Formats: sequence, structure tokens, C-alpha cells
Amino acid sequence: MIFTAHITIMPLTELLDPQGKAVNESLHRLQLNAIQNVRIGKQITLTIEANSKEEANEIADVACKKMLYNAVMENYTIVISE
Amino acid sequence: MIFTAHITIMPLTELLDPQGKAVNESLHRLQLNAIQNVRIGKQITLTIEANSKEEANEIADVACKKMLYNAVMENYTIVISE
Repeated sequence: MIFTAHITIMPLTELLDPQGKAVNESLHRLQLNAIQNVRIGKQITLTIEANSKEEANEIADVACKKMLYNAVMENYTIVISE
Repeated sequence: MIFTAHITIMPLTELLDPQGKAVNESLHRLQLNAIQNVRIGKQITLTIEANSKEEANEIADVACKKMLYNAVMENYTIVISE
């Protein structure tokens, strides 16, 4: 079966996010002052061939740990859909 | 009230995603051959001061249209949480 893993990788909340800060300031220059904070991360979609949702989740987790995310600076969440 | 807008910006499915292709090939070199396709986009979290969920959604939508996404190459979805 084919599953889709939606992986969201965000900078840890304790860390500064300079890219988000720059975008926040730019949005204020466009008069969007209601926006108080911006954080920017990555969204990665994997198409996975697996026998079960659990196996697909396991493969996505290995991919995150081995390559996709940086444990020092980021956290990640995985959502699997069929 | 404070709302959080979770914005997912992905490359259009009709377009090549060279970054995703490179990651896919690298994952195969790590023996993760069950992964058939990778697409990489952005996840942006906005903290918004608004009177209602609808107003927060409207502000996030304006931010996307004015700055955050590129209509030629990307699409976006917004999910608002409190």
C-alpha cells in the first residue's frame, strides 16, 4: 500500500529563529501589525510503500532521524495518511 | 485573543521539485528504498492577535498573498488554532 507521511520540522521554541524574525518585521512594514510572531520550518511529504500505517510511520521516523531533521535545532512531527 | 495560524506552503504538484528529488536519492543511498517520492515545502507559524478565528484566517491569508507564497510555483493551506 502507498502511504503519505507529512513531516513538519520546526525550530525549537527555545531558539531564536532569525528567518522568522525577518519575515515578521517585513509583515509589519506591510501594515500587518496583528501578527506578533513568526516561525519558519519545513514541511516534507514522503510517498512510502509499506504494509501498514505503523510500518510507514517507522520508515518516516528513520528518515527523519538519519537525515531530515537536526536534533540540536529542530523538532519534528509525523502524520501518516493513506 | 491570540490565534496561531499554521501555514503549509508546497511546490505545485505539476512542477519538478529538485530539492525533493535530491533528498529522495540520498534516502535511497541510506537503504530507505520504500520511499518513492519526496516533496519539500515550508511550514510557517504566525501568532496573530484577532477578535475571531475568521479574522485571524483573513490576516494569515493576506500575509500569504502579499509575501509568503509564490503563486507561480506554490500553493498554500492555512489552519487556525487558538
